[in-house]
Amino acid sequence: LTVAELGEHALLARLLTRLPRPSATVLVGPGDDAAVVATARNERLVVTTDAVVEGVHFSRAYSTPADIGYRALAVNLSDLAAMAATPRWALVSLVLPGSMQVAEVEELVDGMSALATRHGVSVAGGNITRTDGPLVVDVTAGGEVAPRKWLTRAGARAGDELWVSGTLGAAAAGLEMLRLAGKGPGPGIGDPGSGRALPAPGSRLPAPGCVARHKRPEPRVRLGVAMGRARAARAAMDLSDGLADAVHQVAAASGVGVRVDAASLPIDDCAREWWKSRGVDAVTAAIAGGDDYELLFAVPAKGAGRLRAVRRQVADPAVTKIGVFTKDAHERVLLRDGKEDVIPQGFEHFANR
Amino acid sequence: LTVAELGEHALLARLLTRLPRPSATVLVGPGDDAAVVATARNERLVVTTDAVVEGVHFSRAYSTPADIGYRALAVNLSDLAAMAATPRWALVSLVLPGSMQVAEVEELVDGMSALATRHGVSVAGGNITRTDGPLVVDVTAGGEVAPRKWLTRAGARAGDELWVSGTLGAAAAGLEMLRLAGKGPGPGIGDPGSGRALPAPGSRLPAPGCVARHKRPEPRVRLGVAMGRARAARAAMDLSDGLADAVHQVAAASGVGVRVDAASLPIDDCAREWWKSRGVDAVTAAIAGGDDYELLFAVPAKGAGRLRAVRRQVADPAVTKIGVFTKDAHERVLLRDGKEDVIPQGFEHFANR
Repeated sequence: LTVAELGEHALLARLLTRLPRPSATVLVGPGDDAAVVATARNERLVVTTDAVVEGVHFSRAYSTPADIGYRALAVNLSDLAAMAATPRWALVSLVLPGSMQVAEVEELVDGMSALATRHGVSVAGGNITRTDGPLVVDVTAGGEVAPRKWLTRAGARAGDELWVSGTLGAAAAGLEMLRLAGKGPGPGIGDPGSGRALPAPGSRLPAPGCVARHKRPEPRVRLGVAMGRARAARAAMDLSDGLADAVHQVAAASGVGVRVDAASLPIDDCAREWWKSRGVDAVTAAIAGGDDYELLFAVPAKGAGRLRAVRRQVADPAVTKIGVFTKDAHERVLLRDGKEDVIPQGFEHFANR
Repeated sequence: LTVAELGEHALLARLLTRLPRPSATVLVGPGDDAAVVATARNERLVVTTDAVVEGVHFSRAYSTPADIGYRALAVNLSDLAAMAATPRWALVSLVLPGSMQVAEVEELVDGMSALATRHGVSVAGGNITRTDGPLVVDVTAGGEVAPRKWLTRAGARAGDELWVSGTLGAAAAGLEMLRLAGKGPGPGIGDPGSGRALPAPGSRLPAPGCVARHKRPEPRVRLGVAMGRARAARAAMDLSDGLADAVHQVAAASGVGVRVDAASLPIDDCAREWWKSRGVDAVTAAIAGGDDYELLFAVPAKGAGRLRAVRRQVADPAVTKIGVFTKDAHERVLLRDGKEDVIPQGFEHFANR
């Protein structure tokens, strides 16, 4: 049984059973967006690690070194935001092909530094390693949160509303555009075995906004922190692997069901246009596609006042109610045109596609 | 100019100039074994990250998955030990080839978990990513240290004694043995361009101890923590890249010179035997070779009592005085048979060899 055959989630579940039981000071352990550690004097440290790999998460054919550095930090800040933690520091592990230009490595660090500066994050250290394979940038980020103010995936209750920030699908559409141009990671559209048909000749080329959303995802740091501080949500997760994945994960971790209203999904205009031009169903594509670094929240039905207070404080991005958590723990309903579908499974990194 | 041409140290120096200035809460920033971060209530968090890469740090031809998992954590615990920090938690980022067997990944986690348990380290989280290239295991470890009790590379003063733990050269000799057998990472001995001659026919095969030291380095956690707590040292560094590298780094960071006495070097017996059988100078090989995860300390000349107290508390490994730090910041002397040589440069990960 190979890693590719088993898939990421199943592999993770297997590995978690093999770890030693964390000490009592680990308040949130493996399996959430980040870990929460109690330090000796009752502080809460939130730590997360995430790697971006050439050929999997980006391609040097279309992402500049600065894009890559930006992205490697952004995906980690997004994980901290999903825990409602304020990012403080980062460690950067660079696994570099020997043939890479030094100027490119410098640009990569510049791209990361610019984002770090914007969020007041100190790059506290790191490591440089050689590889004979693809470029890997692995970032660990640390942040702070007040006791009991962090948001895990496990806090949603039946009756809570499901809210999502920003718009959906733009990053996935942007990645498709890059693949179509033969520049994206993974099999190109139209490649044998990719399962993706070439677009009809003369199909419109889309706006560049979708591609930018793929290359430079915006971590929703202010929103996540504000939601936690105001206790406006009971659970949160970022959409790194797409909405469908996040909905499944939060429902499973919280032991609740979920009903999502397709008509309410804030699908990005550029993504909607792109999929329309290619004859693809936008709802299915937008909720299955990964790389949206928006946040999903479980908001108590009586918490509207708190949510309004957060929205006054953080106006951008917008937040949209897209569904509700339900009592039946097995329910995964996508309501569409009066019919009930099952929410498809999300993005799987090891899936062959 | 490529990464390989510039070399790791020069690349690091260039990149450090490009980072934003760390906030005042970062007490020790990039460039040491680990970073020290002040949390809001005066705690000191020590964090470090280090990756092991297939084909560079290990080969799956001779290291078991458990060896690889062990090693990935061990090198990080060694960095914390070199800061005198007690390890508390780790995050594990696995960058996995899709073709890797799930059973192997599980064994890898088992090997890591066993070491984590031995040192009371909680694996608090991590991440799994696919790659089309070699296996990469990147670990971030966090630990605690009392205010002002950590040990950096920069604290050595002229007149301080240079001490080293354990024995030297075994890991480097073990790696040579594996390469000779065609199983190690990097060019094999006798391969074109490796600059390494094949041993004479009939040369003795060495004891397996050296190979074990390469595969399973022992992080000197108890010793490092005890030295810091007792204030028995003013500076420390681990020998991940070998003694020569560490001596150069500590002297440069501290702005002092250094004189090392070749006769006092605790060269491992199995390494000495191996190099003798191959007609290689053991002193040169032992101090240049990487992968010794022993600790180097700068001990104040008047600190003998404190050092003795530490040795009563931590008897294993032994520690050996091998030299002295001096006033002349440019001095890098290896005293040998009454003659003064210059200490060679250490291991460079990006060097072509």
